[in-house]
Parts: sequence; C-alpha cells; structure tokens
Amino acid sequence: MAEIAPDFPRFHAMMATVASFGGTERGGLHRLAASPEDKLARDWLVAFMKENGFRVFIDAVGNIVGVLEFAGPDAPLVLTGSHLDSQPYGGRFDGAYGVVAACEGALALKDAVASGALRATRNLGIVSWTNEEGARFQPSLIGSFFYTGRTTAESVHAVRDGDGISLGHALGAIGYIGTDTLPRAASYVELHIECGPELEKAGRSIGVFTGWWGAIKTRVSILGEQAHTGPTAMAHRKDALYGASLLITAVRGLADKTNAGGVERLYTSVGKLEVEPNSPNVVPGRATLYIELRSADPAVLTEAESVLGKLIEGVSATSKLEAVIENVSLREAGQFDAGLVRLTEAAAASAGHEAMHLLTIAAHDAVPLALHIPSVVVAVPSVGGICHHEDEFTKPEDLEAGLIVLTDMLVRLCEGGR
Amino acid sequence: MAEIAPDFPRFHAMMATVASFGGTERGGLHRLAASPEDKLARDWLVAFMKENGFRVFIDAVGNIVGVLEFAGPDAPLVLTGSHLDSQPYGGRFDGAYGVVAACEGALALKDAVASGALRATRNLGIVSWTNEEGARFQPSLIGSFFYTGRTTAESVHAVRDGDGISLGHALGAIGYIGTDTLPRAASYVELHIECGPELEKAGRSIGVFTGWWGAIKTRVSILGEQAHTGPTAMAHRKDALYGASLLITAVRGLADKTNAGGVERLYTSVGKLEVEPNSPNVVPGRATLYIELRSADPAVLTEAESVLGKLIEGVSATSKLEAVIENVSLREAGQFDAGLVRLTEAAAASAGHEAMHLLTIAAHDAVPLALHIPSVVVAVPSVGGICHHEDEFTKPEDLEAGLIVLTDMLVRLCEGGR
Repeated sequence: MAEIAPDFPRFHAMMATVASFGGTERGGLHRLAASPEDKLARDWLVAFMKENGFRVFIDAVGNIVGVLEFAGPDAPLVLTGSHLDSQPYGGRFDGAYGVVAACEGALALKDAVASGALRATRNLGIVSWTNEEGARFQPSLIGSFFYTGRTTAESVHAVRDGDGISLGHALGAIGYIGTDTLPRAASYVELHIECGPELEKAGRSIGVFTGWWGAIKTRVSILGEQAHTGPTAMAHRKDALYGASLLITAVRGLADKTNAGGVERLYTSVGKLEVEPNSPNVVPGRATLYIELRSADPAVLTEAESVLGKLIEGVSATSKLEAVIENVSLREAGQFDAGLVRLTEAAAASAGHEAMHLLTIAAHDAVPLALHIPSVVVAVPSVGGICHHEDEFTKPEDLEAGLIVLTDMLVRLCEGGR
Repeated sequence: MAEIAPDFPRFHAMMATVASFGGTERGGLHRLAASPEDKLARDWLVAFMKENGFRVFIDAVGNIVGVLEFAGPDAPLVLTGSHLDSQPYGGRFDGAYGVVAACEGALALKDAVASGALRATRNLGIVSWTNEEGARFQPSLIGSFFYTGRTTAESVHAVRDGDGISLGHALGAIGYIGTDTLPRAASYVELHIECGPELEKAGRSIGVFTGWWGAIKTRVSILGEQAHTGPTAMAHRKDALYGASLLITAVRGLADKTNAGGVERLYTSVGKLEVEPNSPNVVPGRATLYIELRSADPAVLTEAESVLGKLIEGVSATSKLEAVIENVSLREAGQFDAGLVRLTEAAAASAGHEAMHLLTIAAHDAVPLALHIPSVVVAVPSVGGICHHEDEFTKPEDLEAGLIVLTDMLVRLCEGGR
C-alpha cells in the first residue's frame, strides 16, 4: 500500500469544491436532486472524469458512471461511489464523501497502474446515483433501483416533486437525461458516513455495515372537507389536519409501546406532511402523511404494519374523516456480502483499524445493489451521530482513514481478489 | 324604488365575468391576493370604473376606490364594496359578490341621478380591499386595516407569503401600488354571503350582521432538531411535527371541552401548518402552527387564550421541544352601527323581506371600518353554509334580493338619510 496511496490534500480540496455547490451559510448543504445545485456538482464530476481519462456513461435517469479500463473491455468491473444529492439543508458529507473518495481512490489506482505498482485484472468504475435521498422526489434510491432493473425510466421520469415538477422534466432541464446503458458491475463498495453515533461511542474510525434494517414507507391521505374556520360549526367540521395529528401521535405511540422494555426495536416517524389548502382560516380538506416504520426484526415490522393499519382505520372512525393508504413500499431487512465484509476487515486491519460491525438503519444505494451483486458499505464516524442536518460533521482524520481503507479495498478487488 | 332598480342580467353577466379570473374547473375560484388572477379582476374593476365615469383612486397597498361625485367634492361619501381576492380553491361569491353588487347598485343610482329620479346629497364610492382573506399573506383584512390608519404601507409591503415573496413586491409586479390617498367615507355598507347555515335553516333571504365574534389568532413555532429518521434513536428525537400534533389535538380538545354542554361557545382551529424541512426521511426540526380561537363571549375567549398558553407550555415540557409564541393578534367582539342595522331592516322590509339578525364569526372588511365609521354587513344565504370551498353557492334569486336591498340602502344613504 505504501506505493498506492491517496493524496489527502487533493482529496480535501475536492471535498471543499463539491461542498460549495449548494453550500449553505451555516456550513451545510442544500442540493436537492435534479436542482441547479445538483447540476453544478454533476458537471464537476463529469469534468473530473473527462480530465482524468475516465470513459463517461450517463443513463436515462441521470446516473453517472466513469470507468478506467485497466484490463480491457471485457474485464469485470469494480464499482464504487455514492450520491451527490442532499436533504434540504442537510450536511456536506452524506453521499458526497463516497463520491469524492471514489474519485481520489481511482486516481491513486490509476497512477499505480501507470507506474506498474498495480497489476489490475479488473476495471474500475466510479458512480454517482440519482436521487438517493428521496427528499424532493419519492421514492429514495431511485437511481440505484433503476440500475438494478427494478423500475423503468418512464416510471422514474414520472415522479413529481411537491410543486408538480416531474423528475424527468427536472433532469431534462439540467441536461442529465443520458442515452447510455451503464456497464454492469461485478461488485460494489460504498464509503459513507455512519449517520449514527455507534462508531464515535466506541472510539472507532472504521465500521462496516453487515446488513440493513427493514423499512416500511407508507403514504396516507386523510380526506376531510375544506370549510371556513369562522362560521363552520365545530360539530360539522371534518378537519383533515386534526385527523393527521391523531395519526402522527399514534405512530409515535406505536414505537413507544414496542420499545417500552428499553430496547429500541422499532423506529417510527412522520417526516413529511402536506396540508391542503393550508390557509390560516380554512379547515384543511386534505392532509398527506409520509410514515416510516423501521426495524431489524421482520416480525416486529410486520406487527407494526398491522397495528398501523388499525390506527388508520381508527382515525377514520373517530373523526368522520376518510383515510386512504395511497402507497406502501417494503424494504426487507438483509445482509451485505460476507466476502466484502471480510475484505473491509482486512483492509481496515492493514491500516491499523478494527472494523466495527454495524447494521445500517438508513438505506444506501448499496442496498438495492446488494440484492444483485456483492456489495458493502464502509462507514466512518458522524460526530454526535448527527446526519441530515447542517451540523453533520466527520473529522478530517476519519475521512482520511476511510479513504485509505476504500483505496486498499479497490486495489485488492482490481487485483482480482475479493 | 320602482324607478331605481338594478339590472339583474347585467349584474349576473358581471358576476360571471369576474368569476372567470382565476375560475377553477370545478366552478370555484383560486385568486390569491396580488396574484396574476387578482390582477385580471382588478384590471376589470378599474376599467369598469373608468368606463362608467367613476373617479378612480388606488392607494399604496392596492385598495381600489371609484367615486361617483353626485353632490360636489365636499359632500360626505357613502362607501360600499368588499374584496376580489379568494382563498386557495375557494368560492366565487365570497367577496366578489359585494364588489359586483356595488358596481351594479352604483350604476342604478347613477342612472337615477341622471334621470332626476334621485336627488343625492352624498357621493357614492365603491371599493375593493386588498388581501381580505389572509390566505397567501397574513394578516387578513390588511387593506381595510390600512385604510383606517391602523398600519403603515411599509408594514403592509413587508409581509411575506410562504415562498418569501413580499406583498409589496407582489403588488408592484401586478402594477397595484398606487399613490392616491383614498377619500374618507362617512359610512360603509358591505353585502356578503353569510358563509354559514343560519339564513338557509330559517328560510330567509336577507340577514344583517349586528356584530362580530372576537378572535385570537396566534402563530406558534415548535422547535425540535432536524435529524435522520433512520439512525437517530427514538429516545434522542426532538420531533417538531410530533409536538405540533400534540398541540393540534389539544387545541381541538379545548373547544370540545368548552362546548361540552352542547352550546358551541368556542371555535378553535389550526388551518395552516408549516413543517421544516418536510422531507420523508428527516425528523422535522421546526413546525409552525396558525391557531385561531373564536367566540362571541370575551370571557370565553380570554379563558381559552389562557388555557392555550398552558397547552403550549405543556407541549414544551413533555416532548423536549421548545414552543415559541411568535405572534398574537386579538380582534375583540363588537357591534355594527345600530342605525345601519335599522336601515337594513327598512330596506329589506320594502322588498318584502325580514332581515334576520346574525353575528358574523368570520371577519369582514366592515369590522375594521366599524371601529371608525358607521358600518354594517348585509348577508344573503350560503347553500349548506358552505364557504371557502369550490362548492360555495348562493341562489341567483338570493343574490338579486341582496342586490335590491343594497341598492335601496345606497339610495336612502345618498339621499342623506341614515
């Protein structure tokens, strides 16, 4: 590894550049999928790839892959990367770290191949997936799902943001509807901040996600009747926001009850709520809730979904409202590739780290990938566990530790090891 | 009155024209204050005034007054009108009816003056007030408050909509920041749909609002901490939307408790809720509630405000959130002018109607006016009591009955009677 080392100053400079596209005054990042800020970050990535001899592929949903053909056109492809989109006023590490580390790691490998220090039998690809966050457009992970063939370009283009703008329109507007078929990868490694407190608590710099929690994401609309908040008698009101509030408190209660023993086996949330018409003196006619249930235990998740169904029925019954389940998506809990977990451990050990085993509760693009090809997520600490917030931070030395481990893994994979 | 009669076909044609500016597919109206649709309606009104010999005044907040100078520049001014803005996907009668009826009534009086049938000792003005609804911009009644000197043009221009656009900017964009000082009125009569079910229930065509309910409008922000809905432990979440939901259900409970005896003495609502960042997989960091409390009884209102204060403190205490009362506005209950109430009764009686006494729970521009000059609101039935909804409807014959009563009142007022 002495000869195949990432260039830290170059890496930190690239991190700073990428953080400037949609950077906020408070040091965070506001770079929603397919926004003008996203275009800036994408343009930077494509320029980086072209300047450094990558072959660039952009597919119909705006996923960007750059390939260094170390071993001829037919060699298997080792893929690494993450995403460039962020949450609204989120952090500058979530996603961007994995993309920039992929860039730097790939440069290190390219130099090593050129100098003869690395004899690669695999090609190396770096990737940025479209709309991982699912903030502006739902669902999340849309680009990596498309890559695995689980959805069509047509469906992806059709999803709309809160202003009614379709993802297809938004991608077209920033010039990122490509015509390429992305090359198929043989394995996928993603480097990501933990977005949780475990590594920091344990005093570790490197973690490896061995699997992921299951999640059920449900969109429920409460239908009431729009009316004047003045003259409409209380007894006649069908207030959709009132119904939504009953359901939001019940969803929280569901977690409180399940976790009453002290172990947090179920996470629940309502992160998004749309109210119509949302005017101070109009009784809301419609409220749409985005509910999430998460658990590592399939039985807990199934039970929670069943109770949620009853809660939804209950709101309907008690408040003269109608509750409609508009969408349910299930992500079953699963395991990342055991071989790649061992490879992470080995690379971490080479750099003097013990890779801590973790489960990821958040999803990553590696989750849909893992259903098709060997995949893994390597994690570095999040200070205070903070994520999806402008205060999100990872120490430079931890960013570097992760970059070293990733680079070593890419070397071993490109050498043909697993 | 036989000689001084409104022209019904002309009136209905004007109603249809005005309803087309922002008219919705479902027969409602979407004409937010200072929007492009509002501009169309305003342009129509100004053109109407100019074509019919009104002297047009537009003030710094976009209030529009047209004066027919029947009795010389120094004669007192009788003013009538309402507003042209609507709620989001609201109805086509709320506000527009009062403006169009003022137009038609004024034409009838103008013809009568020209023919010698009416000897006016007063001038007649018709008016459309800016942003009565308080939907896009808060507070409501902003134009009529400005007219009574209770706020400055600077403050009015500074208020912002949900997208951060100031009312000053929006008015400038549609060309409705005028430089005129509006003429002072001696009395104000507003014709409006009831927006409630009482007239219909009683089988009456004409009502008169003798006074108005008090209202307290409060904006409360719940401050939590933005975080990832995945990895953030439930115990560490500070979920602003959860806190908001507790408060919304408590605000409803406040009315339920107060009205438990069967008489609805208190109305409560949360019509608008802003959630930040409002992304499905982010624990909300902030939620802002627009709370209304309404009662005819000042003691009930005062007590409700006090309990609300404790509920807000309670949410703070139980959920590790901070609740901040950002704004409170009180509209005390009050009485319209007794003389104008009697005039309404007399005009109604002349047309064969008994004017039903009502209290208005919704505010009208006549409320701020009534604190300064004799004012009243004449009401016609709302089918099913429906208001602030696309289904809002008043039967043509009731619209005509109201128009006859208004015209008669204007005749009597312009003759110098009260």
